[in-house]
Amino acid sequence: MSKLVKEFNDYRSKMNDKILADNNKVIKRIFNLDTNAFAEGALDVATKELLGLVASTVLRCDDCVKYHLESCYKAGVSKEKVIETLSIATLVGGTIVIPHLRKAYEYWDELENQS
Amino acid sequence: MSKLVKEFNDYRSKMNDKILADNNKVIKRIFNLDTNAFAEGALDVATKELLGLVASTVLRCDDCVKYHLESCYKAGVSKEKVIETLSIATLVGGTIVIPHLRKAYEYWDELENQS
Amino acid sequence: MSKLVKEFNDYRSKMNDKILADNNKVIKRIFNLDTNAFAEGALDVATKELLGLVASTVLRCDDCVKYHLESCYKAGVSKEKVIETLSIATLVGGTIVIPHLRKAYEYWDELENQS
Amino acid sequence: MSKLVKEFNDYRSKMNDKILADNNKVIKRIFNLDTNAFAEGALDVATKELLGLVASTVLRCDDCVKYHLESCYKAGVSKEKVIETLSIATLVGGTIVIPHLRKAYEYWDELENQS
Amino acid sequence: MSKLVKEFNDYRSKMNDKILADNNKVIKRIFNLDTNAFAEGALDVATKELLGLVASTVLRCDDCVKYHLESCYKAGVSKEKVIETLSIATLVGGTIVIPHLRKAYEYWDELENQS
Amino acid sequence: MSKLVKEFNDYRSKMNDKILADNNKVIKRIFNLDTNAFAEGALDVATKELLGLVASTVLRCDDCVKYHLESCYKAGVSKEKVIETLSIATLVGGTIVIPHLRKAYEYWDELENQS
Repeated sequence: MSKLVKEFNDYRSKMNDKILADNNKVIKRIFNLDTNAFAEGALDVATKELLGLVASTVLRCDDCVKYHLESCYKAGVSKEKVIETLSIATLVGGTIVIPHLRKAYEYWDELENQS
Repeated sequence: MSKLVKEFNDYRSKMNDKILADNNKVIKRIFNLDTNAFAEGALDVATKELLGLVASTVLRCDDCVKYHLESCYKAGVSKEKVIETLSIATLVGGTIVIPHLRKAYEYWDELENQS
Repeated sequence: MSKLVKEFNDYRSKMNDKILADNNKVIKRIFNLDTNAFAEGALDVATKELLGLVASTVLRCDDCVKYHLESCYKAGVSKEKVIETLSIATLVGGTIVIPHLRKAYEYWDELENQS
Repeated sequence: MSKLVKEFNDYRSKMNDKILADNNKVIKRIFNLDTNAFAEGALDVATKELLGLVASTVLRCDDCVKYHLESCYKAGVSKEKVIETLSIATLVGGTIVIPHLRKAYEYWDELENQS
Repeated sequence: MSKLVKEFNDYRSKMNDKILADNNKVIKRIFNLDTNAFAEGALDVATKELLGLVASTVLRCDDCVKYHLESCYKAGVSKEKVIETLSIATLVGGTIVIPHLRKAYEYWDELENQS
Repeated sequence: MSKLVKEFNDYRSKMNDKILADNNKVIKRIFNLDTNAFAEGALDVATKELLGLVASTVLRCDDCVKYHLESCYKAGVSKEKVIETLSIATLVGGTIVIPHLRKAYEYWDELENQS
């Protein structure tokens, strides 16, 4: 696995474990809901991940973008679809999205190159 | 057409005409790009409208939500898919999204009831 | 009850009923969590409502501000504590919070004057 | 004076008076600072008002936009400069700024037509 | 002191000194107001710090979160109260708050472990 | 050139090249518009860069702040004008802007010291 991808996932797992170990009911349920919301329903998993990606990008949350890029990658979404999603995010969210677009491109490259 | 839908569209058209009549190059091109970005590409129109809807909802822009709800409605997207998209927006964007969810439900009802 | 307070609560109830009638699991659970998160725990209800108020104010959500002002009022929080909370919100969130401060003052007045 | 301009200013004055009558030290000082920050310094008043306008627009605060449009108008800033400022706001802040652009255009028209 | 805590505080102090040395009246007064706003009043210091914490968290400002966590820690606020405050922030602000929750947990651990 | 300035510019160039190589029409046009919007028009380049700076600062985008600080520096804008612009951003955007103010001061110092 690429170093960037591994570091992101390791820190994420380690801290999620700490948070969930604390047994705060509200936080635990929000984590559970996250799994629920992105499961297949009327919309398929790939579409939902693109929805998560565009939301994360316009809200300019780099870690959320990485997470959804990785889920898109695992769900077999094509780069072309990912880029179109990011282009909508950049138009809707404006040029302040561009620094996050740079990091998104970098992370996607790492995902593609790690295999 | 429902009164709410008509009022929104009339004001939107009237003001867009004024803005575009001004011939500011940057603004005109952003308006053009908006048409481009939501046209069919690697992703189909319905998926792109759902992406526009989730982005508008987490950014809490009622008018943008109305606009994309209407485009979804015209593109034949089912209410179920629209609601799943709004549920993702509410989870990602938090409970401050709920007041916008209320208005989105109201507008969707108007769209369905006007025919 | 004051007209402003009544209209806000009526619209809120009517639309919440419509949303919950739809049985979207993610949305329903977020609504339930909202009740949970503001129930007494390590922090008492009044403090939690002030936390909800400051969060709503810096995020500039007028309807959320109204909701938490009303809960504060019902929990017997003094106007002085509410104003100190709003002053922190204005400092942290900046002068763009001021238009929402105006509406918060107006709504608090209505709450006090309705009895 | 146009009805839209008058209503905005009347509500703003009435509520500002109520807020300041409350003597919360933090809030009063923020109001004072606002006057200070937009007074002539290394930058002239017109430039500062355009800075206030672009900040208000990207933060999507309609009332703040109205306030700075009115100050620009009184400071004799040309419509062309105002529009260029709004075009930068729309590019930086994205298409979610457009609904606020519509209201800004409407308010500027009212300001020009009231004399 | 833990390395993470020390680095944060050292950089913060060094840059604050530079900023204040510049004698910009508006910026200096905002810094002063910050001290004022969080001093004991109708609300005690601990409650005000929790208000600062929830505001910083929903606005997703990691450095502000660290600052208020440290003030909470010094004011003797229990971890349980801090976590309940963060849970409200996560619910109100949505899952995009989660990456900031991870960093908040990490920083609180450092604060507890440094003694 | 200072290390901080060089690293920022190198990463920015490298990733922009990757993004533009992808030939997504919407993204390419947004990049082009960025050049257009900040070119001399009714407003001169220096004023437009200050508009870009204040917008980036209230939106709390460190990379955008760096970019506009550098353009201001190259356009010969005085430190005093830059600081007044940042003071307006801090007042309008609130104390959550302060961590970004620290980084802005640091970057401006690097720009001044690199020659």
